[in-house]
Amino acid sequence: MIPDHEFIKNPSVPGPTAMEVRCLLMCLADPGKGDTAVDVGCGTGGVTLELSRRAGRVYAIDKSPDAISTTEMNLKKHGLGDNVTLICSDAVEALSEIDALDIAVIGGSGGRLGEILEMVTDKLTDGGRILITAILLETRCEAVKYLKELGFDVNITELSITRGRVLERGTMMVSKNPIAVVYTDNSD
Amino acid sequence: MIPDHEFIKNPSVPGPTAMEVRCLLMCLADPGKGDTAVDVGCGTGGVTLELSRRAGRVYAIDKSPDAISTTEMNLKKHGLGDNVTLICSDAVEALSEIDALDIAVIGGSGGRLGEILEMVTDKLTDGGRILITAILLETRCEAVKYLKELGFDVNITELSITRGRVLERGTMMVSKNPIAVVYTDNSD
Amino acid sequence: MIPDHEFIKNPSVPGPTAMEVRCLLMCLADPGKGDTAVDVGCGTGGVTLELSRRAGRVYAIDKSPDAISTTEMNLKKHGLGDNVTLICSDAVEALSEIDALDIAVIGGSGGRLGEILEMVTDKLTDGGRILITAILLETRCEAVKYLKELGFDVNITELSITRGRVLERGTMMVSKNPIAVVYTDNSD
Amino acid sequence: MIPDHEFIKNPSVPGPTAMEVRCLLMCLADPGKGDTAVDVGCGTGGVTLELSRRAGRVYAIDKSPDAISTTEMNLKKHGLGDNVTLICSDAVEALSEIDALDIAVIGGSGGRLGEILEMVTDKLTDGGRILITAILLETRCEAVKYLKELGFDVNITELSITRGRVLERGTMMVSKNPIAVVYTDNSD
Repeated sequence: MIPDHEFIKNPSVPGPTAMEVRCLLMCLADPGKGDTAVDVGCGTGGVTLELSRRAGRVYAIDKSPDAISTTEMNLKKHGLGDNVTLICSDAVEALSEIDALDIAVIGGSGGRLGEILEMVTDKLTDGGRILITAILLETRCEAVKYLKELGFDVNITELSITRGRVLERGTMMVSKNPIAVVYTDNSD
Repeated sequence: MIPDHEFIKNPSVPGPTAMEVRCLLMCLADPGKGDTAVDVGCGTGGVTLELSRRAGRVYAIDKSPDAISTTEMNLKKHGLGDNVTLICSDAVEALSEIDALDIAVIGGSGGRLGEILEMVTDKLTDGGRILITAILLETRCEAVKYLKELGFDVNITELSITRGRVLERGTMMVSKNPIAVVYTDNSD
Repeated sequence: MIPDHEFIKNPSVPGPTAMEVRCLLMCLADPGKGDTAVDVGCGTGGVTLELSRRAGRVYAIDKSPDAISTTEMNLKKHGLGDNVTLICSDAVEALSEIDALDIAVIGGSGGRLGEILEMVTDKLTDGGRILITAILLETRCEAVKYLKELGFDVNITELSITRGRVLERGTMMVSKNPIAVVYTDNSD
Repeated sequence: MIPDHEFIKNPSVPGPTAMEVRCLLMCLADPGKGDTAVDVGCGTGGVTLELSRRAGRVYAIDKSPDAISTTEMNLKKHGLGDNVTLICSDAVEALSEIDALDIAVIGGSGGRLGEILEMVTDKLTDGGRILITAILLETRCEAVKYLKELGFDVNITELSITRGRVLERGTMMVSKNPIAVVYTDNSD
């Protein structure tokens, strides 16, 4: 997993998703070389880079040109990107151009989560996985609600990460803001 | 409980202790008009002000002159302080001047927690309460260890507080760093 | 604050609300002898007992007869209850009988949170406070949404409480399930 | 990652380590086919199984015969174990038989963490990684202290995992007890 501090950052672009959360996302998404994955709202590229190392084909979508160029710089910095298509566009439009998806990670939806999830569900292969990372309270509720309505078994896990700063005088525990991962359950 | 933003702050002085933690401290310390209380490492004065409103007599100790003057300004701002003695000194020396204590809240120990707890225990009245707020991992372990060695039944509660910022686009959950409260248990 | 283990429990009745959460609720609700308070969904009576000790008049409402009788037993056990009216009924109906409210704590809504909040808002005195404790994800979202729609400034604080069990071999940290407190903000 | 519920459990054996924590451990340990790994205090086998799938050679040590047989059953259930040596013994003795280690995951130390870490450090290859999972408060402090004394750069991350139970009436958030992962930092 690429450490958080190894990403080039742009103050106007959110991310990268904390390393601990990317670990969980990759465990749950379980990308393989035969998989096509999409990262909706790619931001700094944290998830895109991890998908690029593991999946066959990756689409990274963000409506912000700054996000797309930051993701591009990070791919280059880490020698990745040959299997990544960067799309600077609204997610709904961008998704309409993609045929089939094995993995969809949704980190930003620009207020159109319902439409995005409908479109992703349409294109999802058998055994495909959808994962939504939610920082806003409302996104957590909506993600659970929409996925239920679309017929999925839904899981939600909230991660609170506290990292110690090991100082001379002791170890200071510093919290990251909690993130919820809402995801479809393919076990039965 | 005085809201966090109602305190005058000094960038070189830690605090105030988050309102939610002060609530818990006051519930556990249960100060009454007959009680003498000490706030060791008073910092911004968050705990001192709450003790001043509830206890009979309060000693606020800090070795930092900035902390003492910040606490003094906050007492004045909130019309409190008549029952507060401010002591700018090392905690061990300051405590040696106090006769008897019903409540000791220890938020900073300058690396002398063991000596402070011994001294406080000596001066503690029957039914008296000791509470240590710990930000450092090591302080949590030491506080539990010292209080056990001094013969107390010990409790420790860690509070993780996440406050929502209610924004136009949704409610963003923002974590405060976790704080542990280590305290003596007087129930039997 | 009455310790959790000092409550008589009934396996079919939820609660009591963890002591740390009751501390926060009382700090935020700030009940005084002139206040009329309601505890909607009183369950085991954790909040009702604390309100009874501090407010002038308390209405404890629950549609479950087991909850009402458990709350009654706990009031009796702690020598409280002279200022408490127990109402075994649907919350909306029960609230319609109350004239004016200074404090409303809502711990259970039976799926009718919107109606309850409308009714409570109608009866709320100037400077009155509404507090909702939410265990379900959806209740958090709904509480924020409804209070915003009713014109309040809204705060939400999630408390994660981890209590140590001080054992021979060390201190085992044990988490309580997180609770969110959604409340109206009367500061300006 | 093998889901928690896919493990055979024995009431007298702790574990398995929560899936989210195993994700993080595998990300941090980064086992490869050339690596020799040890799981000290293997318990139910949660970490052993993940190491078995990724590393070259794995030693699983536990002084409890029940733990060893539970780990063995779980290896068999998941078609793993060809590269695993199970050792039912005190960790210090068991480690003395192992020549070189790339990865050490320590989930239980039977009160001998200092000796175990010294021994592991002696056998650690260049670039090797040590990870300690700590449930007890004291283990966190000791792990940080010992690793510092042994000359390592130390990291500590505490994970609080809250999983939703998606019920008819809403999503109930249920906390797992927090776990800290103390680990050596090989970045420079």
